[in-house]
Amino acid sequence: MLRPLGKRVIIKRLEAEEKTASGIVLPSQAKEKPQMAEVIAVSNEVEDIKVGDKVVFKKYVGTDIKVEGDEVTICEIADILAIVE
Amino acid sequence: MLRPLGKRVIIKRLEAEEKTASGIVLPSQAKEKPQMAEVIAVSNEVEDIKVGDKVVFKKYVGTDIKVEGDEVTICEIADILAIVE
Amino acid sequence: MLRPLGKRVIIKRLEAEEKTASGIVLPSQAKEKPQMAEVIAVSNEVEDIKVGDKVVFKKYVGTDIKVEGDEVTICEIADILAIVE
Amino acid sequence: MLRPLGKRVIIKRLEAEEKTASGIVLPSQAKEKPQMAEVIAVSNEVEDIKVGDKVVFKKYVGTDIKVEGDEVTICEIADILAIVE
Amino acid sequence: MLRPLGKRVIIKRLEAEEKTASGIVLPSQAKEKPQMAEVIAVSNEVEDIKVGDKVVFKKYVGTDIKVEGDEVTICEIADILAIVE
Amino acid sequence: MLRPLGKRVIIKRLEAEEKTASGIVLPSQAKEKPQMAEVIAVSNEVEDIKVGDKVVFKKYVGTDIKVEGDEVTICEIADILAIVE
Amino acid sequence: MLRPLGKRVIIKRLEAEEKTASGIVLPSQAKEKPQMAEVIAVSNEVEDIKVGDKVVFKKYVGTDIKVEGDEVTICEIADILAIVE
Repeated sequence: MLRPLGKRVIIKRLEAEEKTASGIVLPSQAKEKPQMAEVIAVSNEVEDIKVGDKVVFKKYVGTDIKVEGDEVTICEIADILAIVE
Repeated sequence: MLRPLGKRVIIKRLEAEEKTASGIVLPSQAKEKPQMAEVIAVSNEVEDIKVGDKVVFKKYVGTDIKVEGDEVTICEIADILAIVE
Repeated sequence: MLRPLGKRVIIKRLEAEEKTASGIVLPSQAKEKPQMAEVIAVSNEVEDIKVGDKVVFKKYVGTDIKVEGDEVTICEIADILAIVE
Repeated sequence: MLRPLGKRVIIKRLEAEEKTASGIVLPSQAKEKPQMAEVIAVSNEVEDIKVGDKVVFKKYVGTDIKVEGDEVTICEIADILAIVE
Repeated sequence: MLRPLGKRVIIKRLEAEEKTASGIVLPSQAKEKPQMAEVIAVSNEVEDIKVGDKVVFKKYVGTDIKVEGDEVTICEIADILAIVE
Repeated sequence: MLRPLGKRVIIKRLEAEEKTASGIVLPSQAKEKPQMAEVIAVSNEVEDIKVGDKVVFKKYVGTDIKVEGDEVTICEIADILAIVE
Repeated sequence: MLRPLGKRVIIKRLEAEEKTASGIVLPSQAKEKPQMAEVIAVSNEVEDIKVGDKVVFKKYVGTDIKVEGDEVTICEIADILAIVE
């Protein structure tokens, strides 16, 4: 597994059906094109977000990488806008 | 529901009749095009603003998103100019 | 009424006769085009300026808004240059 | 009178004869075009400069204003280079 | 050997077979073109990363240098995204 | 005399013979065109440099001024590179 | 001699034979063109680097100067990448 460093988390984009279940619609034509994802790893320096959290983040941020078949994104917590509760 | 992270709040634009009742007129031709909205969620890091507050904010800021049918905006508190009291 | 947030105040431009009485002349051709105004609301975070103060501020700053018929400006205290005493 | 806010002072440019008496010559062709002035008001936040000090400051800074017939300049203390002693 | 100064580490890119064994695939067409490397030296100011750690870092950062035949890179820890565990 | 304010000193360029005696040669074609000068006044906020110090500074910095016939320069201490000992 | 001020050191580039002996090869075509040098003076504010240290630094930084026949460079410690041990 990967452990992010600094103020970073690793997230995995949600599938369409998971997004629908959340009741949240992310407008595709929006300026910042937000996306939904699940947090799969957090750095020691991150306090407000934990593994398993579903989050909304800005689309064009972070570094994409493939870990054991899963496409994930390493991104700064400043780019995570909100947690779905 | 969504819980905003960092120095952010989630707001919902006010309807025309609510704006009229407030006695506040937001000039459409102004440089920063201010808007009125109601706060529907605040981050743990936000102190001066609470859910239910009616606020004036700069129009072209934040990330628009739809939550259970409601169009809302996730924005930085630095872009909230004032509270309507 | 409006309560400004952050390091902001709400001011209302002075009428011509009030400006004349102050003995202060603001040159219209100056680089920063200063203006005179009366402070009508201050944020909790503002210490040096209080409601009723007459101030000189930089013209092209802040957000214009109309509150119960009055045209006012929400602006950062860093743009208030001086208090008329 | 005007009381400057923030890290600001109000200064009044010196007449030619006062400058000559100081023994200081300010080259008109210099990059920063320094000027001499007398301090006529200081903000509460200013410590090193007091009313009556004669100072050298950068020419193209600050906001010009006329107070009871006197042309004065409100400027940041960071733009005051030195005190004439 | 080289001891990095400031918030820096020295890393050595991993061979293809080592990368394959990690189960991590770094997409060559990604915006930030992440790379995998092993940490071979750390500055006294670095706390979260130690010699021997396998890390993911942004490709076009740091200073390449050859030490006793090995090609290594001196880079800022802010450019190390994650540790492979 | 002039007393500099802030993190500033007043310096006077050295004559050719004084520079030669120091054993230091300042290359005229260098990027930053360093110059040698003697410190003639320091601000209260300056600790590492004292009056009489001979220093090397970056050529195109500071404000030139003439004090009682002497051409001097008011400059920021960040632009003083080294002291000649 | 010269004593550097601020976060600066004075360094002298190493001769070819000294570089070869170190086992370090600095690629001439690299982006940041690193160079090797010996530290000959340090400011009081510098802690991690001492006189005599051999260091790797970014080529195009600092101010070149000639001291008693030696060509040296005054540079910021942030531009010193590593110490050769």
